[in-house]
Amino acid sequence: METKIKINYPSSEKVYLQGKRYPELRVGMRKVNLTPTVTFKGDVRHEEANAPVYVYDTSGPYSDPDMAIDLKQGLPKLRQPWIDGRKAGETQMYFAKQGIITQEMEYVAIRENMNCEELGITTHITPEFVCKEIAEGRAVIPANRKHPESEPMIIGTNFLVKINTNIGNSATTSGIEEEVEKAVWSCKWGGDTLMDLSTGKDIHETREWILRNCPVPVGTVPMYQAFEKVNGKAEDLTWEIFRDTLIEQCEQGVDYFTIHCGIRLKNIHLADTRLTGIVSRGGSIISKWCKVHQKESFLYEHFDDICDICAQYDVAISLGDGLRPGSTYDANDAAQFAELDTMGELVERAWAKHVQAFIEGPGHVPMHKIKENMERQIEKCHGAPFYTLGPLVTDIAPAYDHITSAIGASMIGWYGTAMLCYVTPKEHLALPDKDDVRTGVVTYKIAAHAADLAKGHPGATVRDNALSKARYDFRWKDQFNLSLDPERALEYYKASNSVDANYCTMCGPNFCAARISHSLKSCEEEK
Amino acid sequence: METKIKINYPSSEKVYLQGKRYPELRVGMRKVNLTPTVTFKGDVRHEEANAPVYVYDTSGPYSDPDMAIDLKQGLPKLRQPWIDGRKAGETQMYFAKQGIITQEMEYVAIRENMNCEELGITTHITPEFVCKEIAEGRAVIPANRKHPESEPMIIGTNFLVKINTNIGNSATTSGIEEEVEKAVWSCKWGGDTLMDLSTGKDIHETREWILRNCPVPVGTVPMYQAFEKVNGKAEDLTWEIFRDTLIEQCEQGVDYFTIHCGIRLKNIHLADTRLTGIVSRGGSIISKWCKVHQKESFLYEHFDDICDICAQYDVAISLGDGLRPGSTYDANDAAQFAELDTMGELVERAWAKHVQAFIEGPGHVPMHKIKENMERQIEKCHGAPFYTLGPLVTDIAPAYDHITSAIGASMIGWYGTAMLCYVTPKEHLALPDKDDVRTGVVTYKIAAHAADLAKGHPGATVRDNALSKARYDFRWKDQFNLSLDPERALEYYKASNSVDANYCTMCGPNFCAARISHSLKSCEEEK
Repeated sequence: METKIKINYPSSEKVYLQGKRYPELRVGMRKVNLTPTVTFKGDVRHEEANAPVYVYDTSGPYSDPDMAIDLKQGLPKLRQPWIDGRKAGETQMYFAKQGIITQEMEYVAIRENMNCEELGITTHITPEFVCKEIAEGRAVIPANRKHPESEPMIIGTNFLVKINTNIGNSATTSGIEEEVEKAVWSCKWGGDTLMDLSTGKDIHETREWILRNCPVPVGTVPMYQAFEKVNGKAEDLTWEIFRDTLIEQCEQGVDYFTIHCGIRLKNIHLADTRLTGIVSRGGSIISKWCKVHQKESFLYEHFDDICDICAQYDVAISLGDGLRPGSTYDANDAAQFAELDTMGELVERAWAKHVQAFIEGPGHVPMHKIKENMERQIEKCHGAPFYTLGPLVTDIAPAYDHITSAIGASMIGWYGTAMLCYVTPKEHLALPDKDDVRTGVVTYKIAAHAADLAKGHPGATVRDNALSKARYDFRWKDQFNLSLDPERALEYYKASNSVDANYCTMCGPNFCAARISHSLKSCEEEK
Repeated sequence: METKIKINYPSSEKVYLQGKRYPELRVGMRKVNLTPTVTFKGDVRHEEANAPVYVYDTSGPYSDPDMAIDLKQGLPKLRQPWIDGRKAGETQMYFAKQGIITQEMEYVAIRENMNCEELGITTHITPEFVCKEIAEGRAVIPANRKHPESEPMIIGTNFLVKINTNIGNSATTSGIEEEVEKAVWSCKWGGDTLMDLSTGKDIHETREWILRNCPVPVGTVPMYQAFEKVNGKAEDLTWEIFRDTLIEQCEQGVDYFTIHCGIRLKNIHLADTRLTGIVSRGGSIISKWCKVHQKESFLYEHFDDICDICAQYDVAISLGDGLRPGSTYDANDAAQFAELDTMGELVERAWAKHVQAFIEGPGHVPMHKIKENMERQIEKCHGAPFYTLGPLVTDIAPAYDHITSAIGASMIGWYGTAMLCYVTPKEHLALPDKDDVRTGVVTYKIAAHAADLAKGHPGATVRDNALSKARYDFRWKDQFNLSLDPERALEYYKASNSVDANYCTMCGPNFCAARISHSLKSCEEEK
């Protein structure tokens, strides 16, 4: 089945950087080519070249014009040769603890640096550093042995901040082909991982299509499928049903599981006094199970069994925050923090079995309470990566919650959160359509990049500086090509300007500050 | 001329709170009426009333169904009786320094509290407190004696964070009636002040229409009109031309002037090594004048004369940051901070003449450099209110700069900035259309409100809590009516839901966490 799903970025080339330790590695990047800066001295035209900018690329083979893509066949199995030599249970953490640098580790080290060494920028990110961070649990490479199609990426506080996007075929609102296209769509705009939150009846088949055609790691909430199996009756859930679901999804190639193991029977009552109770779907299901049976949750009781399963495939565990606050009123309350304490206990148990793990966080949190979340998470969870949903810094803007949450996401990203789960304009209201996904992903790329700048990630400023120089030079096309959404920038601009103008309609030709500022130079020279 | 420009907020009433010191004061607010929370015990329906929420209202008479509005006549002259008893030169600061509480001061005190005392919330904002803050320069009530139509509002770090919106008829892109409608449009969504940045030939008439029909304070950059008068040749500007422009605009009723008095001849060269030079229009014009004439700027030289003019009318001065950074690379550099030092000197000279003043700030600043801006401004400018443009925390997202800037705006608002100048999605690209203005205003209301929550403004949480409770109760209409943009929230929701549903399409009925969370209570009761 030939597909028309191809990705074209303007004035960009797909380039591959080679590994040193593993010369067979080819790490894909987007190279944005720029036009020269043109100046005049009198009538003499002077050109100065502008170096191309290397951009982190999540679009995989879809942006490589030399790759034929067939959705039925799936993407090339990039990681298969590396995996073939390994035994079950040999996770990235297993290797890292022995100081063994895997292909995935070198791959992500190259990928994170965006060719900045070429510009003379020093970087702390080496394959050795990656290995150490994974060994100590501060970073995760989610990469199921059964998902060899995915390109390695790393989630950790000392790396680029990543973003996750969600898709799902819930109810009857969308079809399978549409879901694959949505997955690729989110990769086009920069989604680093993809959570498939499908809840419909074709859940298995949808996931299969996505996994075989997805160049980024895929996460799920296995409880959703288990819940389907018991026809939506929480009390009918059993460990065996859940376990079989885990294995089914491990076999398919899911790279990480959100599991709400941190909910303890003794803590559920802490949510009773809340304004908005429990707003996590998985969290509310397992809480109901606990309350009906008056038993400790089987997710908590069987946590070691869960780890044993995940270790076999190198599936990472995302410890879901079932008690995350659903309103700013409930932020940082006893329920939330009691769950965090439990997660701190569980993450050490995962590490003991070489299972990579990270911790999910809120939710709705006003700005002055965000830092406490990050500091407490680092302390209680021993430096395991934090993965937050926003947080939304106010509750009063439905239809703009991509923005209310991007504010909190930027801040918590700066404070150390490793991955941000995107929020679209439809949050709280409806399922996102294609345009919502685009807006949500770009908004979260902004948050993640703002955090990278604030954290001083090596080379993070290169793109900003190149874009700003293009702006000041009136190289409009370069400005747009370097931006997170070149198509939308061009569209807005074109509606009222010519792309060759040395001003824009915001100020008009006579009031253009940049133009007057340039002329200061010539009034210097005239003297 | 009858107008169709009227504003309707859903399920809301226009209410007026009376003054105590001045019983003739009627402070307009929006009262959002809510439906009761309905619960069932078995078959017995139980209703619990939800208190109405009082919302700060910038829409003036336009949202009062009892007011007839005639654009030719202009709005009622609310403040005229108060002004009539005053002499020229008697500014709000003049009164405040003597401990005299004006009508404006009591008005803003009532307005800031949003009726929170009725809910038992204590507030530090009293007329006496307002008076003290103005006397000490920490707050400004921009209210030209010649603009009696405007409703008093206060700008200061110990008050609600305000937002400014810009409109302008630049070139031939829009007409006069359209401008008035745009002004009211921005007030509808919550703009606290309005800057008229028109640069076309009908600049005087446009401004007249806006002033006579605008319920919020109006600011301008008088240099734009002066620049028109010299046909766009910066070197032909003179103090006399500028002075006459100031007087013309004072007479019309402009409430505050952005003037780039902080640019000193000796500091201009500091921008030479910048990536993006001078990006302020007014700043670039006066810099050019200084460089061509090799003279100190007449704005700086005649600052005391400017203050004498402003004092006569009680026009506030917004010390424009002509050297604000136009890229994250240029943030917090020597040029920017040299100008800030000069502003600190000037603000004290303004205060000596009882002229109210505030300080403009950046611009483009990465997150880790934002706090330094605020702290330095407080120190160097003796606590005068700070009024920033964003700041944008990254340069790489043209078409999304309302978002890149709202991130910085929220943070700097929390740190103490008193007013945020809005940015629309078209920033850097083109003039905003109506929908861009709406998006820009709502985005900045989010930033300002997030800051209010983080600063702990009295009663700021009331709206969030009421909305979140409505969300958890499935009172969809209440949720939307309490939101910053009820129309858009409803529109997004309605596309795929019924407004009476007790779930939404995001999760579907079986996966609704709130629904399961509610059911936890009943499984408790069944025991």
